[in-house]
Amino acid sequence: MNKQLRSFEQEYVPKINQLLDEKLATSANQPLLGQSMAYSVKAGGKRLRPLLTLAAIVSLNKEITSAEMQAAVAVELLHTYSLIHDDLPAMDNDDLRRGQSTNHKVFGEDIAILAGDGLQALAFDWLATAPLDASITIRLVQKLAVAAGPKGMVAGQVEDVSTTGKRIPLVQLQALHKRKTGALLEYAVMAGATMGHATAEQSQHFARFGAAFGLAFQIYDDILDETATAEQLGKTPNKDEVEGKNTYPRLIGLPAARQALNASIEDARQACDALLDSGVDGNILSAFLSYFEG
Amino acid sequence: MNKQLRSFEQEYVPKINQLLDEKLATSANQPLLGQSMAYSVKAGGKRLRPLLTLAAIVSLNKEITSAEMQAAVAVELLHTYSLIHDDLPAMDNDDLRRGQSTNHKVFGEDIAILAGDGLQALAFDWLATAPLDASITIRLVQKLAVAAGPKGMVAGQVEDVSTTGKRIPLVQLQALHKRKTGALLEYAVMAGATMGHATAEQSQHFARFGAAFGLAFQIYDDILDETATAEQLGKTPNKDEVEGKNTYPRLIGLPAARQALNASIEDARQACDALLDSGVDGNILSAFLSYFEG
Repeated sequence: MNKQLRSFEQEYVPKINQLLDEKLATSANQPLLGQSMAYSVKAGGKRLRPLLTLAAIVSLNKEITSAEMQAAVAVELLHTYSLIHDDLPAMDNDDLRRGQSTNHKVFGEDIAILAGDGLQALAFDWLATAPLDASITIRLVQKLAVAAGPKGMVAGQVEDVSTTGKRIPLVQLQALHKRKTGALLEYAVMAGATMGHATAEQSQHFARFGAAFGLAFQIYDDILDETATAEQLGKTPNKDEVEGKNTYPRLIGLPAARQALNASIEDARQACDALLDSGVDGNILSAFLSYFEG
Repeated sequence: MNKQLRSFEQEYVPKINQLLDEKLATSANQPLLGQSMAYSVKAGGKRLRPLLTLAAIVSLNKEITSAEMQAAVAVELLHTYSLIHDDLPAMDNDDLRRGQSTNHKVFGEDIAILAGDGLQALAFDWLATAPLDASITIRLVQKLAVAAGPKGMVAGQVEDVSTTGKRIPLVQLQALHKRKTGALLEYAVMAGATMGHATAEQSQHFARFGAAFGLAFQIYDDILDETATAEQLGKTPNKDEVEGKNTYPRLIGLPAARQALNASIEDARQACDALLDSGVDGNILSAFLSYFEG
């Protein structure tokens, strides 16, 4: 991993986890629900989405106050809810996530569904109560609701489950990925751009980076599912193929999938160059592309 | 039904339904998801929660603009999502709702879960994009997130599913109901109070009305489940008892349950009197208590 990214992670991941732990401890008034929510939030993960938000703020040379931290961390709740629901028997029916039993395997399907539901509401709670400028708060809530909603993540997930077992054209898979995974990653970048008071021009470059990063992320994930072991993945490998999921390697083969990944990375890199040209320190965002190395 | 309530419904239910229809038609970009969400939102229902919001605004003698309508209607999306998830096989496993097949019976469990997820996000979307004063928008988002979240509705639902089959004390059932059903009804009243610029004193009376109305609503629902036919209910009757749910009639018997209902209605009426004394036209809210007659 890139040195700059490692040091950024070393600085911010502990802060993200501390805030998650502290706030989650008092966020539910029903013990079983609190345990179930905390179980999945604390089950590890790279905290990629909050990190992207913080990186965008830092790249704009703005300070990260506790208000920005709270708003940045909210997206992790949203992401965790989506994982809990994705893993359910009625969806991907996964027993393992990040090397641990999935939420419904530990707490039962009913509690898992409700823990996901609670985390989605809590994401909007944390976002709306972060003491930012009112206009910024409203824009963040609007953007998160769109990214997570029926034109974003949820639409991508419906497209995914309803095309499983049917071969779809690559362009349809791209549109699926853009919503299912891309929308929330792009939101994370744009939330940082918004809190960092990016100009309209800078925002365009942030958006381009977010979209390209999101696509690269999903292609990389598709490739990993085909090539990595259970230990590397922390979940059952090769599930996509067994389940008849549409993936880049399955539709265009592994070499072409790797080319597509490289093209997305290059697109994201160019967005970082454009950010540099517009007065933003794009290097820290560029460092995030090292996730896709090796 | 009370004449004033009937005329209020005749004025506003068509407007609520029109707005729901119009906005839902463009709210998803995945056809199956859009159909599944619309199916449940359009499956009837009294639109009680938006009506309560509008009634509170009207009682404060404030005009209802399209912005207030949009914000008022958002809670119906939240409510509909909760019904879809409540009906799932892993929860109450209901085949019928309002006389029609439940969402998962028509669209499958996976799509039903996702339609619920999408409707929750969409509720925050509509709330955050309603062009109200920024400070009001933020307060509404905060209140809805709390009412719907892990200290509100979702906590009550976890308490419900995790105590089913175990007899609990009445005080615990009250606390369960307060969160499961009461929180969102109280939100609906308080959303109207907020948009109508209620004073701090008036807000206290609105809150008392909302809490008492919410409790009455749940006791009435418990009683109906025991006494009404499938045709009257639009769903399977007597399910609570079959499933071992804790209800007022089961814990304290039907006569005492009716007494508790009357006490809640009386409490709500007193809140309306207090509203009148503080310069609010509490009559329209008082008219909503006729739901619990007969």
